[in-house]
Amino acid sequence: MAILVHLPSFMAVPITAALREAAPDITVWNGREAAVAEQVEAIIAWGLKPGVLPAYPKLRLVCAATAGVDKLLAAPDLPPGMPVTRIVDPGQQAGIAHYVLAMALRHTRALGRYAEQQRRGEWKRHPGRDVSRCRVGVLGLGEIGSEVARMFAAIGYPVSGWSRSAKHLPGVTDFTGDDGLDAMLAHSDILVCTLPLTPRTEGMLNRQTLSRLPKGAFLINVGRGEHVVEPDLVALIDEGHLAGAALDVFAKEPPSADDPVWNHPRIEATPHIAADPSYELVARQCIENLRRARDGRELLNQVDRQAGY
Amino acid sequence: MAILVHLPSFMAVPITAALREAAPDITVWNGREAAVAEQVEAIIAWGLKPGVLPAYPKLRLVCAATAGVDKLLAAPDLPPGMPVTRIVDPGQQAGIAHYVLAMALRHTRALGRYAEQQRRGEWKRHPGRDVSRCRVGVLGLGEIGSEVARMFAAIGYPVSGWSRSAKHLPGVTDFTGDDGLDAMLAHSDILVCTLPLTPRTEGMLNRQTLSRLPKGAFLINVGRGEHVVEPDLVALIDEGHLAGAALDVFAKEPPSADDPVWNHPRIEATPHIAADPSYELVARQCIENLRRARDGRELLNQVDRQAGY
Repeated sequence: MAILVHLPSFMAVPITAALREAAPDITVWNGREAAVAEQVEAIIAWGLKPGVLPAYPKLRLVCAATAGVDKLLAAPDLPPGMPVTRIVDPGQQAGIAHYVLAMALRHTRALGRYAEQQRRGEWKRHPGRDVSRCRVGVLGLGEIGSEVARMFAAIGYPVSGWSRSAKHLPGVTDFTGDDGLDAMLAHSDILVCTLPLTPRTEGMLNRQTLSRLPKGAFLINVGRGEHVVEPDLVALIDEGHLAGAALDVFAKEPPSADDPVWNHPRIEATPHIAADPSYELVARQCIENLRRARDGRELLNQVDRQAGY
Repeated sequence: MAILVHLPSFMAVPITAALREAAPDITVWNGREAAVAEQVEAIIAWGLKPGVLPAYPKLRLVCAATAGVDKLLAAPDLPPGMPVTRIVDPGQQAGIAHYVLAMALRHTRALGRYAEQQRRGEWKRHPGRDVSRCRVGVLGLGEIGSEVARMFAAIGYPVSGWSRSAKHLPGVTDFTGDDGLDAMLAHSDILVCTLPLTPRTEGMLNRQTLSRLPKGAFLINVGRGEHVVEPDLVALIDEGHLAGAALDVFAKEPPSADDPVWNHPRIEATPHIAADPSYELVARQCIENLRRARDGRELLNQVDRQAGY
């Protein structure tokens, strides 16, 4: 029984250590070179290039190291029946919500504008915007979106949420379907994207949808870069329809040097840090699922490969 | 029956309008020039220079236009028995808490550091700090401090509060007295000052007290500038003991051009905007208190002039 860790080294090193610590009875290989292919029963990965998976004939399980599984599901040689699991981490959900809240509050209270004034040595007050009049719309009400919505409501923002099926969260107005999306966009002064990336959600935040937001609206993206048609977003900010955006994810990471997000005065760009995963929890969930897979028991957080999350 | 509005014009204009709207039967003068001194029964003010008060022989009431009354109580010719009231505004309390939360979250998640990286075109992740491990200490648990503590607790920060008497707020560890102050400081990764300014609290945040904070702690001041001995704060940041500060209030407002807060890379300075008052509420509370004073009824939010708040 062995697990192969197939991840960039900044994640691979701590996750390998956590796996060995949590399950001394399981062999753990960090990287493909040393691995004995016939012993590998589970792979922890983020993305999988063609040719990786077929090398492991005894594979039972592909574990995503993250909540999002779009990169894994895109692997062309992922066998049809292969179970894929993803990470559900309450601490990470809270961390993403804290990132979103930080960006939303800074926007609502115009603190970026005051920071610019400070650099110029200027002392000038502006009429403030009250949180209770700044309507938040959350796209996606999975574990992450629900926690984001809960925290916004707890500190006084009016909150709506859009999801495939109505979630009935306390203090959150539900929207579903295409009509529901248009309605929620029209009432969102801050739009937060926490969607999974699937063929249906890719490119969903484009000129058409973002134009439905009220003038002066603000976008926070902690989903995937591919949800946003970035040139449309930048144009709508430059045209004055949107006030700005906070982006933690990008279609290409890092964005190329000439990407306008680096220098845009109304875009705050961070290097995919909203989610701060617990490597111990990733290790525990993978080990538990490998044991369950061997016993034929139901897996934790198994992905619906058809739905894409 | 008349009210004199004695305020800087940015507050005087909207408050005068709100008073006239709310009580057409009361005469309202904006500024001293046009006022008939014998008719003035209430003054709304922020500070009062010597000579202002004695000009109004029928004065029953001095209304602060704000929550803080230190400037008013410092008026040398405030008659001993003159009632002073202050503003209690739940919306403003929430607004201050939102400002504090914005600054705390930005510090906790190192978003200022990432903003610097963005300006340099640098994509680099750093180990994150989790809100649940960032202990908040709130100095003062009046209406404002209580709301600040409540919101911190609602989003997952461990919260303590220090006040004259224990407040027993849900989810908030109580500290009182001098020993309690030292104990709370030693356990506050983020220290928030919401104290009233009194002779006992003036200069309270100095080298001695701020040195008790853990290394890397962060100060947020929404009380009064005079609570902080600013050179001590700046020195402790420059020495590396404190990580930085967010300051909304200053002993001199605006700070002089050579004040280090303008250019300090670890100090975020804002022009006294955390509190965003509702002028309608200021007007309503003043009118209600004038009617109560005439009828000999108990006043709302009357200041304990001995305690200073």
